[in-house]
Amino acid sequence: MIYRLLSAAILVGCLVAPATAQEDSITVRRIFQECLKNNTAYDNLRVLCKQVGHRLSGSEGSKKAVIWGEAALKAAGADSVWLQPVKVPHWERGKPESVTMKVSGQSRKLKALALGGSVATPSSGIEAEVVMVKSKEELEQLGRKKVEGKIVFFNHPFDDTHLRTFESYGSCVWQRVDGAIQAARFGAVGCVIRSLTHIRDDNPHTGVMQYVDSLPKVPGLALGYLSANALEEALAKGQQVKLQLKTHCRTLPDADSYNVIGELHANRPNAPWLVVGGHLDSWDVGEGAHDDGAGVVQSIEVLRLMKKLGLAQRFNIRCILFMNEENGAKGARKYAEEAERKNEPHAFGLESDAGGFTPRGFTFEKLPESIAGMDRIRYLLAPYGLHDLSKGGSGVDVGFLRKPFPMAVLSGYRPDSQRYFDVHHAHTDVFETVHPRELALGAASMASLMYLMSIHLP
Amino acid sequence: MIYRLLSAAILVGCLVAPATAQEDSITVRRIFQECLKNNTAYDNLRVLCKQVGHRLSGSEGSKKAVIWGEAALKAAGADSVWLQPVKVPHWERGKPESVTMKVSGQSRKLKALALGGSVATPSSGIEAEVVMVKSKEELEQLGRKKVEGKIVFFNHPFDDTHLRTFESYGSCVWQRVDGAIQAARFGAVGCVIRSLTHIRDDNPHTGVMQYVDSLPKVPGLALGYLSANALEEALAKGQQVKLQLKTHCRTLPDADSYNVIGELHANRPNAPWLVVGGHLDSWDVGEGAHDDGAGVVQSIEVLRLMKKLGLAQRFNIRCILFMNEENGAKGARKYAEEAERKNEPHAFGLESDAGGFTPRGFTFEKLPESIAGMDRIRYLLAPYGLHDLSKGGSGVDVGFLRKPFPMAVLSGYRPDSQRYFDVHHAHTDVFETVHPRELALGAASMASLMYLMSIHLP
Repeated sequence: MIYRLLSAAILVGCLVAPATAQEDSITVRRIFQECLKNNTAYDNLRVLCKQVGHRLSGSEGSKKAVIWGEAALKAAGADSVWLQPVKVPHWERGKPESVTMKVSGQSRKLKALALGGSVATPSSGIEAEVVMVKSKEELEQLGRKKVEGKIVFFNHPFDDTHLRTFESYGSCVWQRVDGAIQAARFGAVGCVIRSLTHIRDDNPHTGVMQYVDSLPKVPGLALGYLSANALEEALAKGQQVKLQLKTHCRTLPDADSYNVIGELHANRPNAPWLVVGGHLDSWDVGEGAHDDGAGVVQSIEVLRLMKKLGLAQRFNIRCILFMNEENGAKGARKYAEEAERKNEPHAFGLESDAGGFTPRGFTFEKLPESIAGMDRIRYLLAPYGLHDLSKGGSGVDVGFLRKPFPMAVLSGYRPDSQRYFDVHHAHTDVFETVHPRELALGAASMASLMYLMSIHLP
Repeated sequence: MIYRLLSAAILVGCLVAPATAQEDSITVRRIFQECLKNNTAYDNLRVLCKQVGHRLSGSEGSKKAVIWGEAALKAAGADSVWLQPVKVPHWERGKPESVTMKVSGQSRKLKALALGGSVATPSSGIEAEVVMVKSKEELEQLGRKKVEGKIVFFNHPFDDTHLRTFESYGSCVWQRVDGAIQAARFGAVGCVIRSLTHIRDDNPHTGVMQYVDSLPKVPGLALGYLSANALEEALAKGQQVKLQLKTHCRTLPDADSYNVIGELHANRPNAPWLVVGGHLDSWDVGEGAHDDGAGVVQSIEVLRLMKKLGLAQRFNIRCILFMNEENGAKGARKYAEEAERKNEPHAFGLESDAGGFTPRGFTFEKLPESIAGMDRIRYLLAPYGLHDLSKGGSGVDVGFLRKPFPMAVLSGYRPDSQRYFDVHHAHTDVFETVHPRELALGAASMASLMYLMSIHLP
């Protein structure tokens, strides 16, 4: 009621001076206050992590997640909720993998996780000598003669001096995605990588890897940071070091699954869509709390806030829980295809897939200065610690809207990145590592940007 | 070497245009890179937390901390290290306290910590009916008739809608500091408070309380958040609720202790001092990791960085590990008195006492716009996430320089505040809650500001 009075007062004020910035400022404040007081994000995340658990595409967990997501969107007040069918890859880890290091007649178990998509080894495993490289160039220099029949250890560590940890990840992720292909090019029988993390613990970090049909498919695994150190040290002594790898993975036929979509409807006909989302699938370890349970529950909270505060007026709003971001992005492709086919105009897409940490800003695929109202948006978001509004990627899922909707503004939520790769794709990505206030502030930040876009976009 | 060449190139550039901003930018980058790669802060904090442990003024821990601090400053490369003697309060908790809630013939233990400075109860405890208030005004309204002989429960919770958690703390801390005095004014026999935290766990949070000689000294304790909920719920039913309080605290004669001070010396005579510091003492629970182990090891790292990178040129530098911030600030008073007595000019003081979290900025007691070079400093620090350079307090310790050195710039390091009150003054303030990169980024931020001040101050 106080806000209605304030708004009325400001409307009167409008007769002498434009007051929209003041109104917007009041609305952003209402969003933050409502979210900090009554947000559903943290409680939703607890249920998603503890009752659904991890949820790789095609798994039982992913089926439970779809049912959960539908109910959560209804509870958040969506005008309609629907499931968009999509066929997704279905890979299973099977029995736990093992890596044994053998040097000078001694054996030692290393901590490891098979990479997502890896083939199985024979049940007796693969045993071979290890050759270590830090770059593709080093591998090329060794050549087939020194690599054939061996296991390649890709050991390019994170550069600790990067301020933004995603830059470290970006310069190392080729090892995981492309390592098995590169190893096979030179006749290797398997590959292991140093986990993509800064943190000095021994939790291995999985993630997607690729094969090409023209080369043998060799198993790929990630070693824990300390295990990778142990392997590096053994090799540094110039001894012959062997690894025995055992993986029990299998790829099943593609599975039926769904994007889960909640909508709020505009009060004008043929309104374009503003979409917000995260991905519902996760890796098959831990609980997918930061990656991307956080983005999912924040997106649901954005819908709740916009409904509760009456902020969906000029545009239709969709909250999309994308399926299969981790190993195929089939859900995002499907959504973009269908939106194009049905000729549904999209004006804005926002993704949260960088963890549930304290807010820092947003990246935009277009130069922020080219976006309508951005000066005002900058000014309105700065008091909430959202200083970093810069050019950059939106996200894997929302990025698929780029081609069909080239005029759409696409954005990624950017929380603080220091702790993200501690838990990314690891057993340690659990609910307890998410802070209730940091998570809620992210949701409020996202809702504020959605609202401001709904005001400023044509 | 590359930096020397770059600097030389820039100096040549100077002949056509002033390039100091570029040089400064390169230096700030060197500070961050050196700190992220080789910082001592995290390893120092592990030793301080795990080998010294908590270290309340006058305790055995505080003596070990002084010895540790002296060695750490020498190892960091200080030109000289010395101990500044100071008499400090010496309070001991004694045997663990207990709070038992008695309602309808049932007894239940509540989680509690005696507040720092509290008196002991008789060994059999104090048992009395509870009266709950949320403000001093409510207590006044109840008056002596309804309060006399009872235990006052101060139950004003943190306001979750404050963005900056220190604002919540600021509006609640009167309960802890002043509660026992207010309770005694109306004849109460004891007081308990809801712990000063956002987090929904049951770890009680201690901290300093005060008495006045003109009123009886009644014991004061903090209840865990969930225990406070239980007490609130019992009272809400309108039943008579009694508490039995037992505390075993004692105040001993003031003890001998020290500020630990490391110096770097300028290359010009009679150079003024720039000082950086945190407090070496902590509460007597947990490990004082964020409060203020973080500030201590960051300040030592600032000295190390300035020595290693040759940044102490125009000013003398002191890193001060203040004793007794928590319950008396005797160390800070002593330092300021002695500096005034010896007529040592002070140009800048920086304090880190808000936790070892990801950097956000600095507050300045003067309007930042009034500080020489602040525009350039803003511009140079923004790429490191240090956007929040605003007017505000410096810190309890550095603040004592205000009176003797009114021209000095006094500043406080401001990391993200969302997680601080989860652990503040509680058993949970341990090493494991500090993130290595967040801690290091803070130290690099502080060193950068110290360096920029040394360039821009007259």
